[in-house]
Amino acid sequence: MSAPLPPGSTIGILGGGQLGRMLTLAAARLGLKCHVYSDASGPAFDVATHHTVNAYEDVGRIEDFARSVDVVTYEFENVPLPAATAAERIRPVRPPPKALAVAQDRLEEKRFVADLGLPVARFAAVDGESDFRAATQSVGVEAILKTRRLGYDGKGQVRINAATEVAAAFDEIGRNPAVLEAFVAFDYEVSILAVRGLSGEVRFYDAPLNTHRSGILHTSTVPSPLAGSRVARAREIAKAIADALDYVGVLAVEMFYLGGEAKEPLVVNEFAPRVHNSGHWTIDACAVSQFENHIRAVAGWPLGPTERHSDAVMTNLVGQDADDWPHLAAEPGTCLHLYGKRDARPDRKMGHITRLSPKSQRPT
Amino acid sequence: MSAPLPPGSTIGILGGGQLGRMLTLAAARLGLKCHVYSDASGPAFDVATHHTVNAYEDVGRIEDFARSVDVVTYEFENVPLPAATAAERIRPVRPPPKALAVAQDRLEEKRFVADLGLPVARFAAVDGESDFRAATQSVGVEAILKTRRLGYDGKGQVRINAATEVAAAFDEIGRNPAVLEAFVAFDYEVSILAVRGLSGEVRFYDAPLNTHRSGILHTSTVPSPLAGSRVARAREIAKAIADALDYVGVLAVEMFYLGGEAKEPLVVNEFAPRVHNSGHWTIDACAVSQFENHIRAVAGWPLGPTERHSDAVMTNLVGQDADDWPHLAAEPGTCLHLYGKRDARPDRKMGHITRLSPKSQRPT
Repeated sequence: MSAPLPPGSTIGILGGGQLGRMLTLAAARLGLKCHVYSDASGPAFDVATHHTVNAYEDVGRIEDFARSVDVVTYEFENVPLPAATAAERIRPVRPPPKALAVAQDRLEEKRFVADLGLPVARFAAVDGESDFRAATQSVGVEAILKTRRLGYDGKGQVRINAATEVAAAFDEIGRNPAVLEAFVAFDYEVSILAVRGLSGEVRFYDAPLNTHRSGILHTSTVPSPLAGSRVARAREIAKAIADALDYVGVLAVEMFYLGGEAKEPLVVNEFAPRVHNSGHWTIDACAVSQFENHIRAVAGWPLGPTERHSDAVMTNLVGQDADDWPHLAAEPGTCLHLYGKRDARPDRKMGHITRLSPKSQRPT
Repeated sequence: MSAPLPPGSTIGILGGGQLGRMLTLAAARLGLKCHVYSDASGPAFDVATHHTVNAYEDVGRIEDFARSVDVVTYEFENVPLPAATAAERIRPVRPPPKALAVAQDRLEEKRFVADLGLPVARFAAVDGESDFRAATQSVGVEAILKTRRLGYDGKGQVRINAATEVAAAFDEIGRNPAVLEAFVAFDYEVSILAVRGLSGEVRFYDAPLNTHRSGILHTSTVPSPLAGSRVARAREIAKAIADALDYVGVLAVEMFYLGGEAKEPLVVNEFAPRVHNSGHWTIDACAVSQFENHIRAVAGWPLGPTERHSDAVMTNLVGQDADDWPHLAAEPGTCLHLYGKRDARPDRKMGHITRLSPKSQRPT
């Protein structure tokens, strides 16, 4: 295990979106600089000490970028794998590129989680029409067909209710390699935000309850109603994934809670090898945010505390929601975060608010 | 009153130190950019979207800088006044340059506060030897001789205990124009952190108790032991100063508490027309920090909440103190802030820590 990077070191971040921006702001608190590499100008550029705009496919430039920094991390899971492996030849890449490889492919991700003996919904590969029958037979017809790659915020997914609907769904997702997943009737979704340090130590934030609108995260609330024993199980699941990947940084694992009657009440939906939208409340409700703990982990620093000092409800500001900033800024107890994006396209995450209230005593 | 600056606007900051750095980080949360102007590279440059290194005396460049931004503020009170007035010809300067003019000169500052009918220690101008006798006669011989200009962190001050010591003290401060102030035997020092918006609304953070080491702030603690009625009086004093200056932004007023027996238990020591070291705890213990509220005020935004959600003790990391960062980073409940300065000179503020604990019910 290497020594922690001293203050003044530079963190390289692949990706220039709002997560990169908040990672950069967190690094700055610790006296660390950031160099952001992205294929297009983004919100992280305004605050990063250095930035590079260039294709991820340009291995030479990726190597130059890696040479200019002390460690490389990433802020989105669709970083092309060759970029991460090129960077790794020069500097440590944390989380490890293997986490990218698994998380980029829904089928690999499901297999990885299932192979660890962890609970996932039934699933089957669908590469073409010849797979339709076997897939619905093993998974059932109450299911969701999802592209294996490049899906996010509910994109690349089609719900089906009968075997006869698979063909149309396959057309709808562009006839791309897909995975058919059994539909899970869940009470609610929670996410586990874990951070794993270079030493293998794992810490957890309180698990938020997440709600969605049009497939996009809408709110994350702590505490969630999940009972303490369930939280312990959910953390055990997240830790098993992190350990198996020899993970370093923040890992977000989305899980469905199926209710107390279910034989397996918690089922893994998916994981993200990065800081996560459902952890934005940690900026305002914890001494050390998910962003700072990610930076600490990848820089080889001691992990920071993960306890919350306040209850919190995070609400995303999507598209025109952010136009309401003058009123949101005037709301008591509300922390406003805007990402500095110019164009408020309808599904674009423009910012978020966190409403704080005194900490309740619910044992989560 | 003009409309608030929309997200995407640029705040110009005169000064590139750690206060400018923390202002820039706070502006970024709100989707605002910063352009930092300083006569030397500083910690704010690493996070600012734009920066200029140039002399403050270069009026042409100051005007160019002002043209490149939407509003101008400053992070230290010794900004040369002609720079602020040059900027003001192009863009609003907030806080107003008058606050600089008064705060840059200890004699003007004392006169300004006294003329408002607010409590200050006895004081007298000392421009040369001919003033020694009259000054000690009106102020007393238990006194402090201070340069009128460019003193900070206890520099440019000499304590005297007898009239015969004035000459030597005057030599020691370089025979510069000075003010003799009566020594105040106080129980403790508090500071009022007020923020005044463009509308004239004033909000206050909880008043910290401040301790010093070698003339440099060492700790700021909330809550302080100051009783609620005293806090109300202290706030009234700070508001009177802010209103008289038609102030916009965060104003810090240091006051001595002389104990309940004193006829006038609170005495103004000095004020700073900027965010203040004794307010750094607000980053971690409040939903909206002093830095964000300063940015909100100068951008014409609604002021944010000033309530603390946690008790806090802020401790400065001066010089080699910061070398202990690996241990400080590992302390539970501790928020670590490092300013990214390269050289840990003995008296240099390198960072600070804020130790949080659950909010106590003391009525301050």
